[in-house]
Amino acid sequence: MLNETAKGVYTIAVTPFLPDGAIDFDSIDRMVDFYIEQGATGLTILGMMGEAGKLSAHESMQVVDRVIARTSVPVVVGVSAPGYAAMETLSKASMDAGAAGVMVAPTSNLRSDSQITAYYHGAARVLGDAPFVLQDFPLATGVVIPTNVILQIVDDCPTCVMLKHEDWPGLEKITALRAASDAGSRRISILCGNGGMYLLEEILRGADGAMTGFAYPEMMAQVVAAVNAGDESRARDIFDAYMPMVRYEAQPGLGLAIRKYSLAQRGAIAHPTLRNPGATLNAIAAREVDILAQRQTAALRKLGV
Amino acid sequence: MLNETAKGVYTIAVTPFLPDGAIDFDSIDRMVDFYIEQGATGLTILGMMGEAGKLSAHESMQVVDRVIARTSVPVVVGVSAPGYAAMETLSKASMDAGAAGVMVAPTSNLRSDSQITAYYHGAARVLGDAPFVLQDFPLATGVVIPTNVILQIVDDCPTCVMLKHEDWPGLEKITALRAASDAGSRRISILCGNGGMYLLEEILRGADGAMTGFAYPEMMAQVVAAVNAGDESRARDIFDAYMPMVRYEAQPGLGLAIRKYSLAQRGAIAHPTLRNPGATLNAIAAREVDILAQRQTAALRKLGV
Amino acid sequence: MLNETAKGVYTIAVTPFLPDGAIDFDSIDRMVDFYIEQGATGLTILGMMGEAGKLSAHESMQVVDRVIARTSVPVVVGVSAPGYAAMETLSKASMDAGAAGVMVAPTSNLRSDSQITAYYHGAARVLGDAPFVLQDFPLATGVVIPTNVILQIVDDCPTCVMLKHEDWPGLEKITALRAASDAGSRRISILCGNGGMYLLEEILRGADGAMTGFAYPEMMAQVVAAVNAGDESRARDIFDAYMPMVRYEAQPGLGLAIRKYSLAQRGAIAHPTLRNPGATLNAIAAREVDILAQRQTAALRKLGV
Amino acid sequence: MLNETAKGVYTIAVTPFLPDGAIDFDSIDRMVDFYIEQGATGLTILGMMGEAGKLSAHESMQVVDRVIARTSVPVVVGVSAPGYAAMETLSKASMDAGAAGVMVAPTSNLRSDSQITAYYHGAARVLGDAPFVLQDFPLATGVVIPTNVILQIVDDCPTCVMLKHEDWPGLEKITALRAASDAGSRRISILCGNGGMYLLEEILRGADGAMTGFAYPEMMAQVVAAVNAGDESRARDIFDAYMPMVRYEAQPGLGLAIRKYSLAQRGAIAHPTLRNPGATLNAIAAREVDILAQRQTAALRKLGV
Repeated sequence: MLNETAKGVYTIAVTPFLPDGAIDFDSIDRMVDFYIEQGATGLTILGMMGEAGKLSAHESMQVVDRVIARTSVPVVVGVSAPGYAAMETLSKASMDAGAAGVMVAPTSNLRSDSQITAYYHGAARVLGDAPFVLQDFPLATGVVIPTNVILQIVDDCPTCVMLKHEDWPGLEKITALRAASDAGSRRISILCGNGGMYLLEEILRGADGAMTGFAYPEMMAQVVAAVNAGDESRARDIFDAYMPMVRYEAQPGLGLAIRKYSLAQRGAIAHPTLRNPGATLNAIAAREVDILAQRQTAALRKLGV
Repeated sequence: MLNETAKGVYTIAVTPFLPDGAIDFDSIDRMVDFYIEQGATGLTILGMMGEAGKLSAHESMQVVDRVIARTSVPVVVGVSAPGYAAMETLSKASMDAGAAGVMVAPTSNLRSDSQITAYYHGAARVLGDAPFVLQDFPLATGVVIPTNVILQIVDDCPTCVMLKHEDWPGLEKITALRAASDAGSRRISILCGNGGMYLLEEILRGADGAMTGFAYPEMMAQVVAAVNAGDESRARDIFDAYMPMVRYEAQPGLGLAIRKYSLAQRGAIAHPTLRNPGATLNAIAAREVDILAQRQTAALRKLGV
Repeated sequence: MLNETAKGVYTIAVTPFLPDGAIDFDSIDRMVDFYIEQGATGLTILGMMGEAGKLSAHESMQVVDRVIARTSVPVVVGVSAPGYAAMETLSKASMDAGAAGVMVAPTSNLRSDSQITAYYHGAARVLGDAPFVLQDFPLATGVVIPTNVILQIVDDCPTCVMLKHEDWPGLEKITALRAASDAGSRRISILCGNGGMYLLEEILRGADGAMTGFAYPEMMAQVVAAVNAGDESRARDIFDAYMPMVRYEAQPGLGLAIRKYSLAQRGAIAHPTLRNPGATLNAIAAREVDILAQRQTAALRKLGV
Repeated sequence: MLNETAKGVYTIAVTPFLPDGAIDFDSIDRMVDFYIEQGATGLTILGMMGEAGKLSAHESMQVVDRVIARTSVPVVVGVSAPGYAAMETLSKASMDAGAAGVMVAPTSNLRSDSQITAYYHGAARVLGDAPFVLQDFPLATGVVIPTNVILQIVDDCPTCVMLKHEDWPGLEKITALRAASDAGSRRISILCGNGGMYLLEEILRGADGAMTGFAYPEMMAQVVAAVNAGDESRARDIFDAYMPMVRYEAQPGLGLAIRKYSLAQRGAIAHPTLRNPGATLNAIAAREVDILAQRQTAALRKLGV
């Protein structure tokens, strides 16, 4: 079961598809193995980057079952939904299937501190015993969750054990949350998103790791390990070597197509296919990624990584 | 099967719930009977005001089956979804169950004429033979669909047979669409939403009727009938008598709670319950509705309605 | 000087233009006289419906000076701006010119309770002694201001003397604010917007009047007077008689063109011109307004108004 | 006068303030000199990052005059405004003062291809002979301008001579625009924004340079020069060396504070002050910038830059 001590790298998994749009179950197995080989200490599935909204309810559970059957690392399942009923159904089924916890983003209509708090109170109630991750991703949800609101939810809901930190800018929020837990507030796990773009600073400010889907999960593992080993300089060297690719993948709307292209190139999945409607990578963009990958390899070799 | 000649009143049906949030199937039957007694010539289910997003996939089909089993008027099923896969699944199941057609709103990320057109091309492809309603509701979706884009979609997709017109302001759009069909574009059915607030002018500009869920569907039936009978003055008298209630129900966020309260007061459904998370009507607001209802009854009596 | 006891009807004034887009100063005089003859107890200028954003800084002050020179009723000047510097400049000049107070809407980037509070703290500081109106208009600004945030601002800023209430739905907010002042919070004036669409219920829930620009300001004056005289039934009769026109004018984007057309028809301004870029009313819409005006006149005559 | 052949680096200039918020005119001089020493071939002032919205009309012209008096490189003035009147006033005054051209972003209410085209037709009319830059920045304006709409505006408005390209993702747009001009459409200058985050790929796809305000304008000059010299590999080496700082400055809301801090550290302006309301950089963040700057210097030294 997921709890407040979670750390390391929870990779946001893609959902692999065959060229005709059907779920590619063989690639799920290969991808799970790949993520873990590259240093993932947990997996998060059915998030926004997992194209969760494009799956039927039946397919969602097929993905949950397949991933959990393949690995023993903790699996977090995204259960965000417009209503609590669908959230409850998917959460219960996932926990029964062996998930470690679930993740909940706020619905995009929430517009004030008290509306957000009330929403999470309600969510915690329907989720019951399931530990949950509060997903804080204003760029995608349109909902800004201030630090004091996060602390209130942590205070009110014992099952809130982790923050998926994806506010942008969000560095001050980490500092403020850690100051609050130092002052007596319950300390929850903070894993960071945004494709890893600010991971270095996030870790130094007190985050426990990453929860994001950058196509090179080893970057997050290596950076976290170097910081934990006390070698900030080496952490920065590694981080910087990946940065040109990180920022290329950060293009909104196109990012998932880039990520799936890279994963397919690396053999983690068989096809870069996104389900419709979804962006595709053309030949020029694919070549841009190839060049970045070659230079990245060279830069890492120089560092002895 | 739904086609371009559809007219009259397609009531947007609520989804009735028991106080504990379970679907109230008995009330579905009663509600269907009520809508048709009050003049509905068709029903639209699983729309935004049907709390579609709060139902599980299984429940959605239960509602579809129950409504279709109860009535012989055409039933349109809302199948809007973030991805085509879920849309295809629900559409196919609904058409197999006997639905007359389906309704598709654009996803909220669409941001230009060509993106919108491409989205409907893709939707028409996965819907196959199912006739579909283009839902044009910018206030809820954030997507503005210009007249020329609607005409392009009508031109490209023979299965697009109806516009659920809910742009605001949208009167000029009706006039422009009718001018286009007079000039040779395929003429599709236009049924209007916005809770009936502009129905009088909409009909006079060429709309074929209403597709909205105002708790007094007889208003729409009576106004359409009076206009069709050539008695514009009487149509206006009736329309104006309902207007204080129409505008009260038009409060966004709260509107559905008001509507369900009125339907429960009228005996159409057993409970005014909304599924969580949803607004509720407190005692002061309920009293405001009661007074409006009493005055409305008195005004209609004077008109001999 | 504006204070917490303000009540009645503060009309949101349009800015009249000549057909070539220049400010029509003669019409300003006529319009001011008209508003006051129709029952305005105050005027609000340079608001959103005053096309403030389309005026140069110099023109804004010309309008302020002209209006204040023409009347002795209190004049509130809209001073909302992206930065405090422009706000301070216009506020100081307006107060020096004889304005009774100023009005401030939040900037659209504010996204949490504490950000909103901080913004008004800063605004109050630069406004100095000038009494100010807090404009709460989420549909236009995108900023939702919860009741507790309004109360906090009222508590922190003694110069906040009025709420321009334009939340939608917003009836509960009035009830909650009045409950708070009954319980000891400083009671400020609440004048309501939204084109008068909910004025009846707003007054009954404790609002002090209207601050809106419906082209028939006498409606607001008559409704407020009837409620104050204890004759709720007559207030409703009058209110309902205007409702078809109120809802027609409520069309966003087009509403100001409708309003200026009506004001020009009534002789309050010489031309219905909006400054570019702005909507215009075509012949069909103008005829729709004409019919509504004729029916309105007839309905009011029946009521002996 | 600005024309279609413009290339190189047009730095988006900040507006320097004294600690009390007054304009720091001495720093304007120093900053202009600094930008040009670092390789700027033009300057753009009064853009969003110039805090234009926080200046009074009088102050805006003071800034325009001071900058133009100090330099002979072309100066582009941001004249975006809610209405054409203010746009016309500022544009005319700026061109009279010696500006090379003006820049116009779409107003945020535009919602379809034809609305955007119509808006620029109107803008071009009021701007008269002044060459203008079309600012395409959806993240800030909320307005997506498809490629075909840009081409239409270029076709219709001979005074549209440049695109400030800031769509995200936007690489395909550059490729499409260049394909169109290769096919006969008028070729305009394309200078890219987004803080330089994609400059390398943008130049390779056919952009003519950068128009952005990254605190190290020499990066843009060096990258453009290396690409023009045919040394793509060196261009990438330089680009990558700056990338950790580029992405740190890319934090929305906080970015300008970071930029001003860096400019103050570099001696380009005397104070990092933003006008109220605006973000400030605290000590932790300042230290993060300092470390990035040190590492950047070291990386560039290795490259012999």
